[in-house]
Amino acid sequence: MNFLEEKIVKEGVVKKGNILKVDSFLNHQMDVKLFRQMGEEFKKRFADKPINKILTVEASGIGIACIVAECFDVPVVFAKKSKSVNIDGEVYNAEVESFTHKCKNQVLVSKKFLNPEDHILIIDDFLANGCALQGLISIVSQAGGTVEGIGIAIEKGFQQGGKIIRNLGFQLESLAIVESMDASDGSVVFREQ
Amino acid sequence: MNFLEEKIVKEGVVKKGNILKVDSFLNHQMDVKLFRQMGEEFKKRFADKPINKILTVEASGIGIACIVAECFDVPVVFAKKSKSVNIDGEVYNAEVESFTHKCKNQVLVSKKFLNPEDHILIIDDFLANGCALQGLISIVSQAGGTVEGIGIAIEKGFQQGGKIIRNLGFQLESLAIVESMDASDGSVVFREQ
Repeated sequence: MNFLEEKIVKEGVVKKGNILKVDSFLNHQMDVKLFRQMGEEFKKRFADKPINKILTVEASGIGIACIVAECFDVPVVFAKKSKSVNIDGEVYNAEVESFTHKCKNQVLVSKKFLNPEDHILIIDDFLANGCALQGLISIVSQAGGTVEGIGIAIEKGFQQGGKIIRNLGFQLESLAIVESMDASDGSVVFREQ
Repeated sequence: MNFLEEKIVKEGVVKKGNILKVDSFLNHQMDVKLFRQMGEEFKKRFADKPINKILTVEASGIGIACIVAECFDVPVVFAKKSKSVNIDGEVYNAEVESFTHKCKNQVLVSKKFLNPEDHILIIDDFLANGCALQGLISIVSQAGGTVEGIGIAIEKGFQQGGKIIRNLGFQLESLAIVESMDASDGSVVFREQ
């Protein structure tokens, strides 16, 4: 097991309905030392890619993205989930469906911050059905930029998102891929990588 | 002028209605090198405080908070703005009014992640009327914890938030305090600190 899988086994909680709660270190309380380890691992896995910007989506992706960005020495852009009076001018947008919140959202990025010269690493905390990720890929594509890779903390390997994204030819690196989990005994089985 | 004031003069845009757009480096695109400088400055200003946790609120506070947290070598907890199916169990909550979004929100923190032993540094990107900040202070208070200090990137000094918080006796450190700004010529005047 790698450092993230060990952390999931130690602190993650499996709930009914295929929910894996990792709120003690990933998406409510945030363990920034763990994020730094994740950043260093992504830096290794995407070492040969000319990444100049990181793209994520609010809210829980932002913390990981910022620390990964320090490892790559590049800025972050985060997609916003609702139209704010503070986004004016033209935006790229995509519709995404949230597994957690059971609703559809627009995600928006100002056209000022993505362009055809951008070589993007997309970062997010979770990958399940892949809707959020497809929205971010669509936004980079609308801008004429290049998705150099996708770095995910935890992938639910029993849902379709990862398979679809890999079938499309993207380099998708998930630090932990959950093959199955069992709420009755709290066990988690990871895919061997 | 300090490093943040210089950045605001260089890249900030003043809009009608006392809106200061800093989306190229603070709250849409994020300059993580600047965040690191902010973290080092907060570490100096709160050097004598026994801080063991950073509290912020989603979304744009999270990036700054995570990099500041690395400087302090402590974890981050971020308050969530809506009830998610992923927050179960008991929560601390407070109602806050957003200047930007012109709406009222509940902010929530799981009781698991704040307790009477906590010595908290609150971090946020903006301080205007102070409603978000009052909500976070209320949440720490509900938990029985101690607010050791408050670190803000940009304070709108012509609104009441900062004055109220300082009158309450908190150590509030804002890296840039805007005294006035003028949309007609884009000028920004900072308070001398």
